[in-house]
Amino acid sequence: MRMVDLIRKKRDGQELNQDEIDFIIKGIVSGNIPEYQATSWLMAVYFKGMNFDETAHLSRSMINSGAVLRIEGLRPLVDKHSTGGVGDKISLPLAPLAAACGLIVPMMSGRGLGHTGGTLDKLESMVGYSTQLKPESVEDILHKCGYAMFGQSKDVVPADRTLYALRDVTATVESIPLITASILSKKFAEGAEGLVFDVKCGRGAFMKDEESALKLAKSLTQTAAVLGKKAVAVVTAMDEPLGRMIGNWLEVEESLDVLEGRGPADVNELVIRLNAWMLVLGGLVKSLEEGIQKSQDVLATSRPLELFLKNVALQGGNPDAVMADRLKRRAYYSQVFEAPKAGWVQGWDSLGLGLLASSIGAGRSKVDDKIAFNAGIQLLAKKGERVEKGQPLCLLWVDNDALLSLSLEQVANLVSIQEEPVAPVKSLILHEVMGA
Amino acid sequence: MRMVDLIRKKRDGQELNQDEIDFIIKGIVSGNIPEYQATSWLMAVYFKGMNFDETAHLSRSMINSGAVLRIEGLRPLVDKHSTGGVGDKISLPLAPLAAACGLIVPMMSGRGLGHTGGTLDKLESMVGYSTQLKPESVEDILHKCGYAMFGQSKDVVPADRTLYALRDVTATVESIPLITASILSKKFAEGAEGLVFDVKCGRGAFMKDEESALKLAKSLTQTAAVLGKKAVAVVTAMDEPLGRMIGNWLEVEESLDVLEGRGPADVNELVIRLNAWMLVLGGLVKSLEEGIQKSQDVLATSRPLELFLKNVALQGGNPDAVMADRLKRRAYYSQVFEAPKAGWVQGWDSLGLGLLASSIGAGRSKVDDKIAFNAGIQLLAKKGERVEKGQPLCLLWVDNDALLSLSLEQVANLVSIQEEPVAPVKSLILHEVMGA
Repeated sequence: MRMVDLIRKKRDGQELNQDEIDFIIKGIVSGNIPEYQATSWLMAVYFKGMNFDETAHLSRSMINSGAVLRIEGLRPLVDKHSTGGVGDKISLPLAPLAAACGLIVPMMSGRGLGHTGGTLDKLESMVGYSTQLKPESVEDILHKCGYAMFGQSKDVVPADRTLYALRDVTATVESIPLITASILSKKFAEGAEGLVFDVKCGRGAFMKDEESALKLAKSLTQTAAVLGKKAVAVVTAMDEPLGRMIGNWLEVEESLDVLEGRGPADVNELVIRLNAWMLVLGGLVKSLEEGIQKSQDVLATSRPLELFLKNVALQGGNPDAVMADRLKRRAYYSQVFEAPKAGWVQGWDSLGLGLLASSIGAGRSKVDDKIAFNAGIQLLAKKGERVEKGQPLCLLWVDNDALLSLSLEQVANLVSIQEEPVAPVKSLILHEVMGA
Repeated sequence: MRMVDLIRKKRDGQELNQDEIDFIIKGIVSGNIPEYQATSWLMAVYFKGMNFDETAHLSRSMINSGAVLRIEGLRPLVDKHSTGGVGDKISLPLAPLAAACGLIVPMMSGRGLGHTGGTLDKLESMVGYSTQLKPESVEDILHKCGYAMFGQSKDVVPADRTLYALRDVTATVESIPLITASILSKKFAEGAEGLVFDVKCGRGAFMKDEESALKLAKSLTQTAAVLGKKAVAVVTAMDEPLGRMIGNWLEVEESLDVLEGRGPADVNELVIRLNAWMLVLGGLVKSLEEGIQKSQDVLATSRPLELFLKNVALQGGNPDAVMADRLKRRAYYSQVFEAPKAGWVQGWDSLGLGLLASSIGAGRSKVDDKIAFNAGIQLLAKKGERVEKGQPLCLLWVDNDALLSLSLEQVANLVSIQEEPVAPVKSLILHEVMGA
């Protein structure tokens, strides 16, 4: 087998088989295939795509490039993956709710970069909380509270890191089969058996339009099906940020609100819906409707919050400190942004807010930037709400006051108010796709 | 400027400007841009193409990567370039004919690889003939006989060697703008001011179909026009080999026949036509018709053959030996292939014959293979000719008799004879395209 022939085959739109993709991935990881051939192949994949079988071959080859986490005894193992958005704290209340319903959730998450935050950063805003878990700790924590939150370990899917580093510098990140294989290989190598995907769609998301979000949703679920795994993808709107808090500790607080049954409607809707699908995939309920009912019932109990606090303790945090810090831990400087005129909020620019949050310390521009855990943005009015002139629209929390005046100017461009009433968002759910 | 942004720009089908392409080519040649980004960009160019302006930018950047040959005083400077075919010895009789008509021809040529032969190899089959000329020798030879035959020098267009090496291993050779810039940069850097292209089309050519050959013809002439150079492209059929001889010394003999006015009709037609266009571009005639008339008139004199022999002497060969060796220098073993039945020859498979010629020593499979100059194939009947059963159809000349029996079997698959009469080829010329 020669790499140049496989590049040509893909370039000409032909399907690659498992042996051929194994050859490519092994070669890239070992260095036997030079990087200049790898990137040429990646660009050919960008243009010609891969069908679900090929994407499954690629996922398998990537899984086989490293270690696989096996969780013994505990079942059903179901995980959720979000393609990332602004204010997306869903995992924090969802994991304990799912565990409270009887699911086992080994939840592998990522860090924030650019305009999107990361679940690991949000968790680590709780003092002492550690997301670097050894496989035996994951298993122990799962035994004790039903869910564990951790980052990708280095020996799992090394091929993904190699490929991503090459894609990042060669404009081949935005390829649906490559995104699909990257997500699936990591999730399945980390032990998930059923997967619910939250595919975000809109200005604040990776997928800007509904068509490409739906395409990714189908690719994820169909490829998972080829791999013999159960999967559902929910395409959700990411036009405005999710909830009212953007910033790591602020989002922990909003998650606690959800667990206490008084979270914002949009976050609540998504937590219930995604949990319901996880219950369906785990076989604990017979239908989505039953799953929704069960999720609502369990969320009304104190059990999810108890599991959340138990998990905090198990992963090195201090549950009492977390509860005591609510409404107290804020960045040193704050500033109110007031409505420049009366009217109805037409919406916030979630991409702009995400970038702003990042620039005031709540996120990262570069992978090695340090995060200011208490910095962030609190939205006081969202789409469809009536506001009067001078009414506070949002609060900024910043550790460095030099950032304040500049940020206020920016906020003015991120919200629009119009004189006619605007309908509020009824539901974030645009599509739901099940694996065949 | 960042390479990843330029890759993305091309990936998304946008036009790159001169500064951007300069940045890319300088970066690739200097090594500041890593190979993995270069090949990703090349694959994006493969898919998205380049318009004539971009292709001209690329040609300029490539020319500027190295030295440029300037020929002082001698004018008009016109060259010919063929995209390569089987039995294509056109350059050998064309250059002295053009010189005899008053043109100055600094003819830069290549070597054979795969199924196509190379002009330099054919010339070097004349004992002592050297094609490695220093710039001052080129000028001296041009002064003395009006044309010089030489290979690409190392300091001219180094970017082309770097790019070609990367394209060769990443399935990005077959890209019309990349082919165009490669050809034009070399030809213009070697001093040509007007260029006639012979774009071969058919099974034995690089361009297999008329549509892509025409596309290349337009790209070459239009891009040359953007560069301010005069150019014409003639698209010619390469279904059967050109002439009746395939093999280096055999083709020198056939070229001498042409110069003596008794060459095969197809080779003759092309030599006259291409020379006529060279005269038009050089401004020595007013029309193609006048060019054809002048070419025929001059070919009927002894001047072209005299110049050929003078050039042989100037480039280190022995003109007397060349003339004395005709019909005498042949590989040691020969074999006749006879017609298996009576009928009309429907045609020879030029690709197959090219590969066969290469495998019996007349060409190269790898760049460092040694050539058997006297080996080759002589066709005794071509398309449209009537043959009787047992009549000799071709002769094989081989230095190693182990190759003979195997080769004879192969020949049987390369020719077809049918019972109904077949029309002979009237003209090889399919299209003619002038730069705007």
